[in-house]
Amino acid sequence: MYNFTNDYNETVHPELLKAVTSTTNQKIKGYGLDDYCTKSKESIKQQLQSPNADIHFMPGGTITNLTVISHILKPYQAIIAANSGHVNVHETGAIEATGHKVLTVKTEDGKLTPELIEEMLIFHCDEHMVQPKLVYISNTTELGTIYTKQELREIYQFCQKKHLYLYLDGARLAMALAATENDISFPDLAKYTDIFYIGGTKVGTFLGEVVVFNNTTISKDFRFSMKQKGAILAKSWIVAVQMNALMQNNLYLELGRHSNNMAEKLKTIFENAGLTFAFKPQSNQLFVNFPNNLVKKILSNYSVDNLGAMGIGYTCLRFCTSWATQEDEIQTLAKYLKGVIDI
Amino acid sequence: MYNFTNDYNETVHPELLKAVTSTTNQKIKGYGLDDYCTKSKESIKQQLQSPNADIHFMPGGTITNLTVISHILKPYQAIIAANSGHVNVHETGAIEATGHKVLTVKTEDGKLTPELIEEMLIFHCDEHMVQPKLVYISNTTELGTIYTKQELREIYQFCQKKHLYLYLDGARLAMALAATENDISFPDLAKYTDIFYIGGTKVGTFLGEVVVFNNTTISKDFRFSMKQKGAILAKSWIVAVQMNALMQNNLYLELGRHSNNMAEKLKTIFENAGLTFAFKPQSNQLFVNFPNNLVKKILSNYSVDNLGAMGIGYTCLRFCTSWATQEDEIQTLAKYLKGVIDI
Amino acid sequence: MYNFTNDYNETVHPELLKAVTSTTNQKIKGYGLDDYCTKSKESIKQQLQSPNADIHFMPGGTITNLTVISHILKPYQAIIAANSGHVNVHETGAIEATGHKVLTVKTEDGKLTPELIEEMLIFHCDEHMVQPKLVYISNTTELGTIYTKQELREIYQFCQKKHLYLYLDGARLAMALAATENDISFPDLAKYTDIFYIGGTKVGTFLGEVVVFNNTTISKDFRFSMKQKGAILAKSWIVAVQMNALMQNNLYLELGRHSNNMAEKLKTIFENAGLTFAFKPQSNQLFVNFPNNLVKKILSNYSVDNLGAMGIGYTCLRFCTSWATQEDEIQTLAKYLKGVIDI
Amino acid sequence: MYNFTNDYNETVHPELLKAVTSTTNQKIKGYGLDDYCTKSKESIKQQLQSPNADIHFMPGGTITNLTVISHILKPYQAIIAANSGHVNVHETGAIEATGHKVLTVKTEDGKLTPELIEEMLIFHCDEHMVQPKLVYISNTTELGTIYTKQELREIYQFCQKKHLYLYLDGARLAMALAATENDISFPDLAKYTDIFYIGGTKVGTFLGEVVVFNNTTISKDFRFSMKQKGAILAKSWIVAVQMNALMQNNLYLELGRHSNNMAEKLKTIFENAGLTFAFKPQSNQLFVNFPNNLVKKILSNYSVDNLGAMGIGYTCLRFCTSWATQEDEIQTLAKYLKGVIDI
Repeated sequence: MYNFTNDYNETVHPELLKAVTSTTNQKIKGYGLDDYCTKSKESIKQQLQSPNADIHFMPGGTITNLTVISHILKPYQAIIAANSGHVNVHETGAIEATGHKVLTVKTEDGKLTPELIEEMLIFHCDEHMVQPKLVYISNTTELGTIYTKQELREIYQFCQKKHLYLYLDGARLAMALAATENDISFPDLAKYTDIFYIGGTKVGTFLGEVVVFNNTTISKDFRFSMKQKGAILAKSWIVAVQMNALMQNNLYLELGRHSNNMAEKLKTIFENAGLTFAFKPQSNQLFVNFPNNLVKKILSNYSVDNLGAMGIGYTCLRFCTSWATQEDEIQTLAKYLKGVIDI
Repeated sequence: MYNFTNDYNETVHPELLKAVTSTTNQKIKGYGLDDYCTKSKESIKQQLQSPNADIHFMPGGTITNLTVISHILKPYQAIIAANSGHVNVHETGAIEATGHKVLTVKTEDGKLTPELIEEMLIFHCDEHMVQPKLVYISNTTELGTIYTKQELREIYQFCQKKHLYLYLDGARLAMALAATENDISFPDLAKYTDIFYIGGTKVGTFLGEVVVFNNTTISKDFRFSMKQKGAILAKSWIVAVQMNALMQNNLYLELGRHSNNMAEKLKTIFENAGLTFAFKPQSNQLFVNFPNNLVKKILSNYSVDNLGAMGIGYTCLRFCTSWATQEDEIQTLAKYLKGVIDI
Repeated sequence: MYNFTNDYNETVHPELLKAVTSTTNQKIKGYGLDDYCTKSKESIKQQLQSPNADIHFMPGGTITNLTVISHILKPYQAIIAANSGHVNVHETGAIEATGHKVLTVKTEDGKLTPELIEEMLIFHCDEHMVQPKLVYISNTTELGTIYTKQELREIYQFCQKKHLYLYLDGARLAMALAATENDISFPDLAKYTDIFYIGGTKVGTFLGEVVVFNNTTISKDFRFSMKQKGAILAKSWIVAVQMNALMQNNLYLELGRHSNNMAEKLKTIFENAGLTFAFKPQSNQLFVNFPNNLVKKILSNYSVDNLGAMGIGYTCLRFCTSWATQEDEIQTLAKYLKGVIDI
Repeated sequence: MYNFTNDYNETVHPELLKAVTSTTNQKIKGYGLDDYCTKSKESIKQQLQSPNADIHFMPGGTITNLTVISHILKPYQAIIAANSGHVNVHETGAIEATGHKVLTVKTEDGKLTPELIEEMLIFHCDEHMVQPKLVYISNTTELGTIYTKQELREIYQFCQKKHLYLYLDGARLAMALAATENDISFPDLAKYTDIFYIGGTKVGTFLGEVVVFNNTTISKDFRFSMKQKGAILAKSWIVAVQMNALMQNNLYLELGRHSNNMAEKLKTIFENAGLTFAFKPQSNQLFVNFPNNLVKKILSNYSVDNLGAMGIGYTCLRFCTSWATQEDEIQTLAKYLKGVIDI
C-alpha cells in the first residue's frame, strides 16, 4: 500500500545517521551535560541570533509540551489553544494529567488571534474559573496552515500586554519556515515567543526535539521538571548531535522545503482532478475533500488519515509528505487518480 | 439592594438549625462513623428505596465532584459534560487538577443525550486521545432545565451499553424533583444513575451534600479518597443531622417546591412585562433577556448574575429564587419593573 | 465506654453555637466575601497585631494543608516534615496527591531544628532529587510537645537564610499557646512563620480552621487554589463567626488551657500509678507506656488510641483531653487505675 | 581524568549501532506498531518463555517507572520501596508527581523482604493513611547487591497473598542476571514478578528500556498511559531493534558479565590495598570506603560518585564499571592506588 500517512513514518536522514554514528567509542557525560550538547546549543543560538537562549534536548513532542507547560504554570492556571491544537486532541490529556485545563477556541484555520484570546480572558473573570496564563500555538498548525510574521508579532505583543506566556509548538517548524508564503525567521521566533520548540522527529531524526526558552525567567530549574517527567535522556547527546547536523548548511530548512515541494506537486494533481481542500494548503499536509463514493477505493490503496465527513457528500483525507518523499511516489499517485476519478 | 443572586445566599432553614442545635453536650465519634451519620443514611436509603446504597456526607459541591470523579477514573480517562456543566466552567479546573480531561458537548438547553455522548465516543477512537468513561449531568442543569424520567433512563441505558458511568450532580436536585414538569422520583435516581449527589447548601443547610453510590463496585475504598482530598469532616454529623431533617416529612421537596413557586411567579411578571427567556424556565433559575438599555438600571437595584450579551440588543440576567424567598420580594420586583419597563 | 480518644469527639462549644445561631434570617454574600468574614478577619488581625495578614476560612485541617502547600510549591519542590508529621502519616497522601514529595526527618520529640533541616538541604543537591522548599512544623506537635519561642525563631531565621518557607500547622494551636511552658504569642506567629493556621475543630467549632499568610507574596491568587480544591464553602461565614467568637475575651486560649489542665491532672494520676510517658507531656495529649498485661483491660474500658509496642514489655496508649473534658471523668479514671494497677 | 562514574557514560555498543543503522531507507509504521517492534517482542517472549507477556518499548528508566506505577495504582494507593530505591531518591519526585506516596523501608543492603513489607502493611491500617499496593524492588539494587531466586519468590508469594503487585526495576538487570552468585533466569522474572523492565541504557543502547507485564490484567490500556506521559516514541523501533539485538546470542548477559568481571578485578585491587566496601560487591558497582585523607586526591584523578561520610574517618566512593570498561583502565587504577595508598 502507498503511504502518505505521516512525516514520522520515515526512518532517519543519512546526514543525521552519520552524526549519530560518529559518537562511537567515547565516554560522554550523562544527562545532557556533555560537550556535544554544548556545541549543539551553540549552533542553535547562532541560528537564532540569541546568545542567551536557554536550550534543552527532549525525547519527543508530547513530553516537551507537558514538561514545559507544567513547569511554567501555577496549579490554577490554564492554557489557551485552538480546538484543533495537538495538546487538546492528540496527547491523551497529557496537559490535564499535569493538572491544567486546556481552554479551547474554535478556529477555522487552526490559528489563534488576539481577538480570540481576548474573548477567553474576558470570560475568565474570577476565582470560580481557571486563570488563563499561557497561549499555545503551533506552526505549522495541525491543519497545515502557517502564521505570518505580523500575526505572530501581534499575538506576542498582546500576550505581553496581558501578562500571558506565548509558547509555540514547532513539531513541523521546518515546514513552516520553509513554506513559500512564510516570512518568519529563526531570530523572529526568538523575539516573538517566550518558548518554542524545534521539531526533529518529523524532519528525519531518530527522535528528539529542542526546546528554547527565550524568556529565561521562566526556565529557572527547568532541569528539575525534565528529570521529574522522565524527559532527560541519560544519553541526551543522541538528540544534540542530530540537531547540530540539522543546523549546518541550512539542512533543517532544506528538509522542510523538500516536504513542502512534494506537497505542492500533490496539490496540483488534486486540483487538476477537480478536488478541493478543507484547509488552505500551505505546507506538507493536504486535507483533500473526496466524494464519498471514492473514499473506500482510495483507502484500500493509500494509507492516509481519514478525518471523516466534511460537508455533504465529501470526506476529508489527509495526505502528508516528508523529507523522504520521492518524485515517483507523486507520479504514481497522479496516475492512480486519473484511473479512479471522473469528474 | 434587592437580591436574587443565588440560592446559597440565605443562611439556614430553622428546621436544620434545630437539628444541628440538638447535638450539643455529647461525645460523638469522629469522621462520619457515628450514630447520627448511620441514622441519616438510613433515612436516605428509605427515600431511595435502596437498602444497599453506599452513602457519604461531603462538605460541598466542588469537593464532591472532584473526589467522586478522581476516585472512579483511571489516569487516561475523561468525563463528558455539557459545555455549560458546572465542572467545566465554575470549579477552577478542579477536575483537571486531579488529572482528568473534561470533554464538552455543545448543548442549547444544558442537557446531554445519548446522541451527543455517542459523537464523543466515536471521535475518541484510539490511545492518542483520552478515553471517555464517565458522563456528568446535572439536574436541574446549570441553565435551570430538568431531565424527564425517559431522558434519564435513556442516557443511563446508553451508558450501560457503552460501559460508561453516569454521575448526576444534584446541587439543585430539590428544585428538579419538585418541578411541575418533573416525573423523576428518588428511587428513579437510585435506578438510573451510578452515582448522584443530593445537594444541601442550596436548600438551606449550613453546608453539606450527600453522595450516593448506587453502583457499589466503584465506591470501594471511597473513604480513602475522601480523606486524601480533605473531604471527611471530623464532625461529619453536622451534615448528617441536616440531611436527616431534610428527609423527614418531605421537607427536601417542600423547599425545592417553594423555590420553584417563587420563580414561577417571577416568570409571570417577566412575561407580563414582555420579556423573554434565554432558556426554558423550569425551576428556580430564570435567565431573562433584557433590552440592553435597561440592564444598567436593573443591576443598580438588583443583585443578579449577568451572563452578558444574548443575541443582538439583549443581555441575559439570571434571577434565582430560594427556599427563603418571600412573596413580598416578588411583589416589589413586579412594581419595580412596571416603573422601568415600557415595551 | 469512657472516652479520651480525641479532642474533636466533642460537639460544639456553647459560645460558638450561639455565634452560629445568631446568623439566621439573613441574606449573606457567598464564598467568604461577606461582612461576617470581614469582621472575623479584623478580630484575628488584632490578635496577631498584623494588619496586613491575608486570612482565609477553611473547612478542615487536611484540606488546609494540601491547599496551602500545593498553592506555594512548584511541581519539583518538596516539603520537609518530622516523620511523625500529620501530613506525612495521617492524611492519606494528600500532599503527594497534589504532586509533592514529603521529605521526612526522624525526630524523637516531633520537633524540627535548623540542623535537621540543613541535613536535608545538603543531601538534596541537584536536579535528580526534589528541591526542598517548605518546612512544615506543627505546634503542638503530633506528639504533644511544643516549640519555644527561641526554637521557632531559629527555624524561621534559618528558613529565611535558605529561601525556604515556614508553615506551621496549628490544629492544636490553642493547646500550644496555653501550655504552661509556652512563651509564644499570636504576634510571634505572625513574625516567625510565613504561613500558619489556627485550628478550630479541636477547640469546639463545628468545623473550620483559619489560614493566615504573613508572607503575602505567596498568597497571591490563593482563592483560585481554594476554589479548585473545594475549600471555599459557599457559606464560609459559618467558620468566620465561630472564629470571631473564639477571638473574644481570650476564649481561644481559655479552651486550650482547660484541655491542658485536664491533661495535667491525668498526668499526675499516671505518675502516681508509676507509669511513664513516651513523649514529654506538655499539652493535652499524654502518651502513656502501659505494661503489656494491662493493655487489653484498659482498652476494654477506655476508648483511646493504641500506638503499639513501645520498648520491651510496654504499649503506648494516647489519652487526649479537650475543652469539654470534665473533672469527674478524670476522677473516674483515677479510681479505675487504682483498681487495675499494682506496681 | 579517569572515569568510573557510571555505566551510561559510554556511547553505544557496535552490535546495537549496527541494528539501528540497518533500518535506513524504509517507511515504518509509527508509535510502536511496526514489524521491528513485533519481532523484537517475539525475541523477548522467547527469552522469557512467556508467550502471553505484554511488552512495551520505553525511552528511559524514570519515565518507565512513573508510567507503570501511575497506570496501575488508584489515587490513594502507595508503593513500598527500600529507602535507597531509585524511585525514592533519584527521580526528582517523579512518582509523587503522579500523585502517589513512596513508603520507604530502611534496609542495610538495598533489598526488601516479606518481613519489611509486612511491617508497612500492619502500620497502614485505615483510610487516614495511604493504602500500600505495589512493591518496588530493583535488581541489581542501587547498592549493587542482587536478589536470589528464593528471595524473589518469597517476596512474590507474599505479595500474591497480600494482594500487592510486585514491580522489578531492571535498569541493571543484565548485571544482576550475569552475577556470579545469581540463580535467577529470565523465565523466573516472568514467573515471580507482576511487571519488570529490562534495562537497555546501562548496557550500551542509545536509549531505551523494555517493560514487561506478566500480569496482563493490569496492563490493559497501557498505551493510553504511555501516550499521556510522553512515553511512546514516534519511532519506537529505535528501541526495539536494539533490544532485539541484545536478545540474540546471549549478548545481553555477555555485556552484563563483562561489566561484572571488570568490577571483580577492581574489587581484588581494592582488597589488596586494604580497603573495605560499604555494601557487598556483587555486580558492577563497588562502594569503597576510603580513608578521608585520600579522598581529595582520588577525586582529582578519578571521576566517581562521592556518597559522603561512611563511619568515622571514612568516605564512600562508588566505582562503576560497564560493558565498555577496558582491562587497561583497571590496570592503570591498580598502579595509581599503589602510588597513593600506604596502609
